[in-house]
Amino acid sequence: MKAFQGEQRLRTEGWLAVQDITDEVTEAVRESGVRDGIACVYSPHTTCCVRVNELENGFLEDFAALLRRLVPSDGYYAHDDWERRTENICEEDMERGNGHAHCISMLLGSAGESIPIRDGELCLGTWQRVLFLELDRERDRRWLVQVVGS
Amino acid sequence: MKAFQGEQRLRTEGWLAVQDITDEVTEAVRESGVRDGIACVYSPHTTCCVRVNELENGFLEDFAALLRRLVPSDGYYAHDDWERRTENICEEDMERGNGHAHCISMLLGSAGESIPIRDGELCLGTWQRVLFLELDRERDRRWLVQVVGS
Amino acid sequence: MKAFQGEQRLRTEGWLAVQDITDEVTEAVRESGVRDGIACVYSPHTTCCVRVNELENGFLEDFAALLRRLVPSDGYYAHDDWERRTENICEEDMERGNGHAHCISMLLGSAGESIPIRDGELCLGTWQRVLFLELDRERDRRWLVQVVGS
Repeated sequence: MKAFQGEQRLRTEGWLAVQDITDEVTEAVRESGVRDGIACVYSPHTTCCVRVNELENGFLEDFAALLRRLVPSDGYYAHDDWERRTENICEEDMERGNGHAHCISMLLGSAGESIPIRDGELCLGTWQRVLFLELDRERDRRWLVQVVGS
Repeated sequence: MKAFQGEQRLRTEGWLAVQDITDEVTEAVRESGVRDGIACVYSPHTTCCVRVNELENGFLEDFAALLRRLVPSDGYYAHDDWERRTENICEEDMERGNGHAHCISMLLGSAGESIPIRDGELCLGTWQRVLFLELDRERDRRWLVQVVGS
Repeated sequence: MKAFQGEQRLRTEGWLAVQDITDEVTEAVRESGVRDGIACVYSPHTTCCVRVNELENGFLEDFAALLRRLVPSDGYYAHDDWERRTENICEEDMERGNGHAHCISMLLGSAGESIPIRDGELCLGTWQRVLFLELDRERDRRWLVQVVGS
């Protein structure tokens, strides 16, 4: 049984900027030596997520429009109300609220994705790519990949 | 290779009550003896979920407001229409419908979260906590954590 | 340590047709010989997903109504705008756009679900079933199950 962890750092380009990390995840799977198992790709941030989907600019534009409609950034967010907020104070967030980014993150689901590995390869479908999604502003971020198997 | 499963029971406090289960999950990882691997934290209920996110009361209030707007509890739900419903009859649900809770559960995504483990510790980011979300009324619930690795 | 992968093919019946694949997943877990571990059930498509939830027709009707309201199929989608689209050209999609299906897929979360296994059995709750959801039109599809554990 093998277990391997990789970690990568990146600088994102702002709200809903998407970075294709498929090649780095593929490389980590090769480095792990795992032939059959699972790759768990994970964002350790509360306003980012890792998602497996298609990378096509029209689709990303459509998805941004959908999120703007469902979770507008200019609504009232108690998370950004500094007259009320007393927990988890982060100075960086006081300049620019990110309540909408937290709501989007929770709506989109889990922090990461688990992808099967067979014969040493990620079992991605034809159009699937592993994407790192920024849901907040331009920031320094990182992601992890944990590979387990034999 | 090690595999370990923990289970905990809890009583929730009603719609969108959130319980922080990070300490119990951390304890299960220690008990498992796994140094490198994955912790899969899982809700075996169809109207609850486990999510990794920030625990801040303003954010939880924002998220409740968003869900109330997107999936109102007072709309028509065929799931709660006892003149039509013939499947999976659960007497407890006949008193108070939970069609909106099922819809929210499906919208929010997977039943659980998979979190990488390195050096015997969950790889949670600074603000990440493991949260158990009740999407229905006050109920008796449980959650599982399955740890695999070496 | 054991690792096993199963794969199944199916023909879906169109938008939001749901297929219950619990029995096939259960059978794969038995075949794997894993007593304690994780089953990762995965869709290799960008307009399908695997979800654990209740199978009740009223609920599925409610969920379809919710998605129709949140992500209407008849809106404008840049993904379907063939005067602009230059990437990932798929002739099949030119006849009937599927921009809304991609948006729904991203909104619903991860491509798959990870389910704990104990004593050789999937740890599904009373009402939980493993469901394969078609988010696009009637198509040939497949899903994978990767089992790891001891």
